Amino acid sequence: MADKKMVEAITSMEEDFAQWYTDVVKKADLIDYTSVKGCMVFKPAGYAIWELIQSQMDARFKATGVENVYLPMFIPESLLQKEKDHVEGFAPEVAWVTHGGLAPLQEKMCVRPTSETLFCDFYKNEVHSYRDLPKVYNQWCSVVRWEKETRPFLRSREFLWQEGHTIHATFEEAEERTVQMLNLYADFCEEILAIPVVKGRKTDKEKFAGAYATYTIEALMHDGKALQSGTSHNFGDGFAKAFGIQFTDKDNTLKTPFQTSWGTTTRLIGAVIMVHGDNSGLVLPPMVAPTQVVIVPIRQQAEGVLDKAEEIKASLINKGFRVKVDDSDKSPGWKFAEHEMRGIPVRIEIGPKDIEAGKCVVARRDNGEKVEVSLDELDNKISELIPAIQKDMLERARERRESQTYVAKNWEEFEATFAEKTGFVKAMWCEDQACEDKIKEKMAVTSRCMPFEQEQIADTCVCCGRPAKKMVYWGKAY
Amino acid sequence: MADKKMVEAITSMEEDFAQWYTDVVKKADLIDYTSVKGCMVFKPAGYAIWELIQSQMDARFKATGVENVYLPMFIPESLLQKEKDHVEGFAPEVAWVTHGGLAPLQEKMCVRPTSETLFCDFYKNEVHSYRDLPKVYNQWCSVVRWEKETRPFLRSREFLWQEGHTIHATFEEAEERTVQMLNLYADFCEEILAIPVVKGRKTDKEKFAGAYATYTIEALMHDGKALQSGTSHNFGDGFAKAFGIQFTDKDNTLKTPFQTSWGTTTRLIGAVIMVHGDNSGLVLPPMVAPTQVVIVPIRQQAEGVLDKAEEIKASLINKGFRVKVDDSDKSPGWKFAEHEMRGIPVRIEIGPKDIEAGKCVVARRDNGEKVEVSLDELDNKISELIPAIQKDMLERARERRESQTYVAKNWEEFEATFAEKTGFVKAMWCEDQACEDKIKEKMAVTSRCMPFEQEQIADTCVCCGRPAKKMVYWGKAY
Repeated sequence: MADKKMVEAITSMEEDFAQWYTDVVKKADLIDYTSVKGCMVFKPAGYAIWELIQSQMDARFKATGVENVYLPMFIPESLLQKEKDHVEGFAPEVAWVTHGGLAPLQEKMCVRPTSETLFCDFYKNEVHSYRDLPKVYNQWCSVVRWEKETRPFLRSREFLWQEGHTIHATFEEAEERTVQMLNLYADFCEEILAIPVVKGRKTDKEKFAGAYATYTIEALMHDGKALQSGTSHNFGDGFAKAFGIQFTDKDNTLKTPFQTSWGTTTRLIGAVIMVHGDNSGLVLPPMVAPTQVVIVPIRQQAEGVLDKAEEIKASLINKGFRVKVDDSDKSPGWKFAEHEMRGIPVRIEIGPKDIEAGKCVVARRDNGEKVEVSLDELDNKISELIPAIQKDMLERARERRESQTYVAKNWEEFEATFAEKTGFVKAMWCEDQACEDKIKEKMAVTSRCMPFEQEQIADTCVCCGRPAKKMVYWGKAY
Repeated sequence: MADKKMVEAITSMEEDFAQWYTDVVKKADLIDYTSVKGCMVFKPAGYAIWELIQSQMDARFKATGVENVYLPMFIPESLLQKEKDHVEGFAPEVAWVTHGGLAPLQEKMCVRPTSETLFCDFYKNEVHSYRDLPKVYNQWCSVVRWEKETRPFLRSREFLWQEGHTIHATFEEAEERTVQMLNLYADFCEEILAIPVVKGRKTDKEKFAGAYATYTIEALMHDGKALQSGTSHNFGDGFAKAFGIQFTDKDNTLKTPFQTSWGTTTRLIGAVIMVHGDNSGLVLPPMVAPTQVVIVPIRQQAEGVLDKAEEIKASLINKGFRVKVDDSDKSPGWKFAEHEMRGIPVRIEIGPKDIEAGKCVVARRDNGEKVEVSLDELDNKISELIPAIQKDMLERARERRESQTYVAKNWEEFEATFAEKTGFVKAMWCEDQACEDKIKEKMAVTSRCMPFEQEQIADTCVCCGRPAKKMVYWGKAY
């Protein structure tokens, strides 16, 4: 009964993927809506995933020499306007502060939608000599973009993210950092989130407002739609020129430095849900599971059961795992369904008979496997299982992505594929934006990226038939 | 020469404490000013201190069952207005967002100055049954208060903080949590920041807008002024009533729950500076020093010197210390002054002669002691020294505070003490706000708290001579 009630509450993903997503987000207790449209509450189960993403990504940043800083959340209007493309890209979607206390401000300020302009203003004060370079700074904060349509984690008016902003003496060094951070994101997605990604460069049409080049990692969701999961921008010297940042180089001449920025957001949680989730709810990769193992006592009133559960917990915590005992007064069946909904990677079931027989049941969330394990072997079994689940989840996600990645050599194949399928379609492109525009208009798909790993699928552009220059991933995007 | 240049750049604290503070904040590279008045940049050296505060405090929170969440930064005007005292307290100093994108908002929103109202709105959705209680949530975020006068760390228009918000079935449980968190803050200040604090309750005049009771920890700065360093509020059921939060208790009746909130801010960094700093700059307690040991190579071009420095660093990092080698092209003297300015607890000096003799020089930042240490003994020496410095710094701060804490039995003593001294004055009070107002008006000092550890200094109120009810700490406050 209890199990049914939980499971019935979710729409199946085959029936309505968007509704399934919303159901999981709510039923797994990740978020709550608020009185401010498009802003949400990260509840403990949702925020704890972000904390695990944050701590592990931050450690990887610091290993490459990144230092964290914190800049103000407000940008005066005149500062936002200093770089032309940038202000055009962001001004339509910022929230404006016009009053401080009871008095109108002399100059209105927006809440940062991103902080390039603030970092430029800061670097202008900080950078004078080649000795001041490079600066490799990052901040963890929230930003605001006044979106019309919002969805939890994927698009909200306020969201949490990290934004790295670096400044270098040479273009080459900036380019190297841009690609280094994109690779870091890609490795993070694969190793921590168990999400395989395609790495590549955005077309000029899709690049960041004010960037020289934007690199992206693109992941494929269960429904075949693409999710841009992290971006890294090389700004060249455009921002530095607009803000008048200069430094005296070793040769004693005045030069303009080069900048980058790179970011990932709480959207990554949306990716985890949509890549790994199933019709029983969330499925969390162990590396970002706030609870990796839940112990559900069976007949918990019976003597010794809770003690044994606590003993197992203590031993596993000692091995470095995140473990909870669920001793609430709900039925075991209810608990099973609830912890499945919340995506906890491993469940241990233990009751009086198990204790007598010196064993317990271990169930995997990712593939539903249940095995009996001797209590003596339990610690070792879990130590093997956790990395195995992490690995298998990545492998399955990769296989699914491969099965949803298609090749189109010409327009007929391209049209036919998108008419029937949702996924990545690899096709050649002449690099003319007119073709990109036409494809978007006709097929309602966008260029996701020009992957680093280029393939020669055909000699001609899938759209116009002229000589092809780049292989592009196309898809419908979130 | 180089040393002199660095040192000359700071005003001495005896000459002008406020200027000394500003100099240290700038020269130790903690912050930078920005184009938005009253908002500052936390530079790497400043933000890293906050990260150490955050991670260590967060671990202590979690050990008491606190869970982290994240609520929106915007509060609709109607929500802010729901609790009468609260809106009166905060409305004059909030920043208002009036436009989203290009369109005016239907209802203006303020950027959170604190999040009681948002948590109440959230809890109203979440709390229905005794099973939903307690909720013990916290968030790390930035808040905005449109202050007129601002000073780095101490009072800025945007600042970083944590705010805990809890909700309980009974008043007693709420009170217990309020005091528990105040004690946690006090222990944190003493054990991590090496700052002794007085724990007590605020008078009604000084309590938080909308609170039933406010508890505080008060620290004494080098100049004898008090700094409120953390507060914990018991709201009773006032907010819950204003927001209509109710729950069905075990006895099946509808009840109103009880709430608390508690917070500390980046102001703690200001406290560290003003409690421990000296005329050579910042002095960091090892527990919050981003770099605990800096190794300065002498004649670093000489063969083997940098290798030896790196070897020492690796060995100390392996012991769990935060260590850097300064191999920049500045002179050793310049480096000494710079690392003193930045407050690094321990400096190791090592040159070719030292290496030959199998020793190095170890200098303490806190008391200036320099000793020769055999390289074989170095790891052990540092392992003893780091906790010893931490302990000594607390001890010295405690002694200084004691020497700046006075007792006044009557008005004459009270007046005479504040005429000559700046510090805490302990004096008796009748609990009538008229006396508190009069003292503030006449002496320009405020009640800091009614300490938990009460003493019977006299029988009568220091102001009016009527029977005394409470011993109060009075002082000039930041």
